[in-house]
Amino acid sequence: MTATGKNLTAYVNGHFLPLEKASVHIEDRGFQFADGVYEVVACIHGHFLDLGPHLNRLDQSCAAIDIVVPCLRTHLEELIRETWQRNPFDDAMIYIQVTRGVAPRAHLAPDTLTPTLIITSRELPRPSDEKLASGASGITLEDFRWKRCDIKSIALLASVMGKQEAHRQHADEAFWVDAEGHVLEGSSTNIFATIDHKLVTHPLDHQVLGGITRSMTIQLAKKAGIEVEERPWMLNEAGLNECMLTSTTNAILPVCHMNDAAVGNGKPGPMAAKLRALVLEAMDALRREPPVRRS
Amino acid sequence: MTATGKNLTAYVNGHFLPLEKASVHIEDRGFQFADGVYEVVACIHGHFLDLGPHLNRLDQSCAAIDIVVPCLRTHLEELIRETWQRNPFDDAMIYIQVTRGVAPRAHLAPDTLTPTLIITSRELPRPSDEKLASGASGITLEDFRWKRCDIKSIALLASVMGKQEAHRQHADEAFWVDAEGHVLEGSSTNIFATIDHKLVTHPLDHQVLGGITRSMTIQLAKKAGIEVEERPWMLNEAGLNECMLTSTTNAILPVCHMNDAAVGNGKPGPMAAKLRALVLEAMDALRREPPVRRS
Repeated sequence: MTATGKNLTAYVNGHFLPLEKASVHIEDRGFQFADGVYEVVACIHGHFLDLGPHLNRLDQSCAAIDIVVPCLRTHLEELIRETWQRNPFDDAMIYIQVTRGVAPRAHLAPDTLTPTLIITSRELPRPSDEKLASGASGITLEDFRWKRCDIKSIALLASVMGKQEAHRQHADEAFWVDAEGHVLEGSSTNIFATIDHKLVTHPLDHQVLGGITRSMTIQLAKKAGIEVEERPWMLNEAGLNECMLTSTTNAILPVCHMNDAAVGNGKPGPMAAKLRALVLEAMDALRREPPVRRS
Repeated sequence: MTATGKNLTAYVNGHFLPLEKASVHIEDRGFQFADGVYEVVACIHGHFLDLGPHLNRLDQSCAAIDIVVPCLRTHLEELIRETWQRNPFDDAMIYIQVTRGVAPRAHLAPDTLTPTLIITSRELPRPSDEKLASGASGITLEDFRWKRCDIKSIALLASVMGKQEAHRQHADEAFWVDAEGHVLEGSSTNIFATIDHKLVTHPLDHQVLGGITRSMTIQLAKKAGIEVEERPWMLNEAGLNECMLTSTTNAILPVCHMNDAAVGNGKPGPMAAKLRALVLEAMDALRREPPVRRS
């Protein structure tokens, strides 16, 4: 394990143990078949951001691939809280993974398996001040992922390859476009554009994950009187002058260059600034709540 | 671990250890991102069937996702042989998995990782006599996998879902068809048809894995004077009277029903019988070679 894993604690199948020693069997179907799903939840001062929606989506992901979540919602919430408490980060990124369980390797799983449940807590990463000032850069790639990107599965190799390609091109994120050139989402983010002062993003379908921050952004925008359109859109549309990505760890981050060309004037724009302020305000509201006691 | 794992030995990252205790870290990228590749090799009496082609393909898969195979070919062959020797099956299914290694979870991997290497040996499964007599049954599903099925990656969730759906419909295998209805391959097999006495299978492209048994079947067929066409084909083509699947564990198995309808006369046909005999002959030739000494 890398040094950053020292003194951290993970939850694995009923036990809390040092992250360095946290392991799963080599015949766990998560390891051999990507037969599992996951969630990433932000925790601010012990307050979990949108935990309900995250756990609802975990239920949906499990249902989509016929896995039964291995414990009751209240117990899962307790385990998440305890994982947070046993690690030293007030602002944390909670990672939850459920797989179908362990069985001798065969595509068809026995229906008697006990699912594997993993929870970790690491420091919540944030975009750097420099990145916020300059905006992120992206590339576009024609989508070669599977056709069930609405399921938050661990079958993420295509997304890894997308991120690698972005990195090779000195960009921060790869954005998937369909055969017609519509921008779908990033390899680990959703994406919005400002077009004629409206906030535009691809509608939810099998090509797009229903991001929790995506949904929060839409709600906050509407509440602030911004018109929101969920429709297919392209980078070269007239009137497009901003792009921004959303994710649990980035909240909202302007994307100012795409395929080496400036988006709009190439600088973070007012829509991204306004929405980011609204999201951070929601996070700060959590920070102002009474601190959660560590055990 | 299930009872069938008792007394078996696995190789994991430099160590041989009881399969029951064989594990990988929860932050192995194979477990969190399906960031890895694999091979399944048949072993007959200690003789590996087409080991060279399998290890060539492992190299290609690793190269496709920018992983460096963690040891030299000769050393890998020694490890495979030793894994076979340490387990009790003369006829064995050797499973080899390589992942990018262990790192704190982030889509973009550090480029300093040491890949994970796993090898197991289990009894080589075979189709039952009943299945060989009746032929297998299949369903077709419109392909929803990713567009790099030429890479033998562990991102197999779509294939698992296909196999589950086949099972729900009381069939043995799910075969992927493209939007036009061309039959591509099965969830863990390749597929051939006999059309006007020719052997037909989809050409190799991003929708099809270059199966080692597929390739062996084509070679044996040509040697036996059978005309082979690698071209897109459909189930409803005039002159189609046989289907058969190929895989390392099934060798060649006739597919006599598809979506509950009989293929041809609904019985195993002469092309499948002839090719299966040729493949088994090649395997028997290995059996007649001097037995490999166990250490």
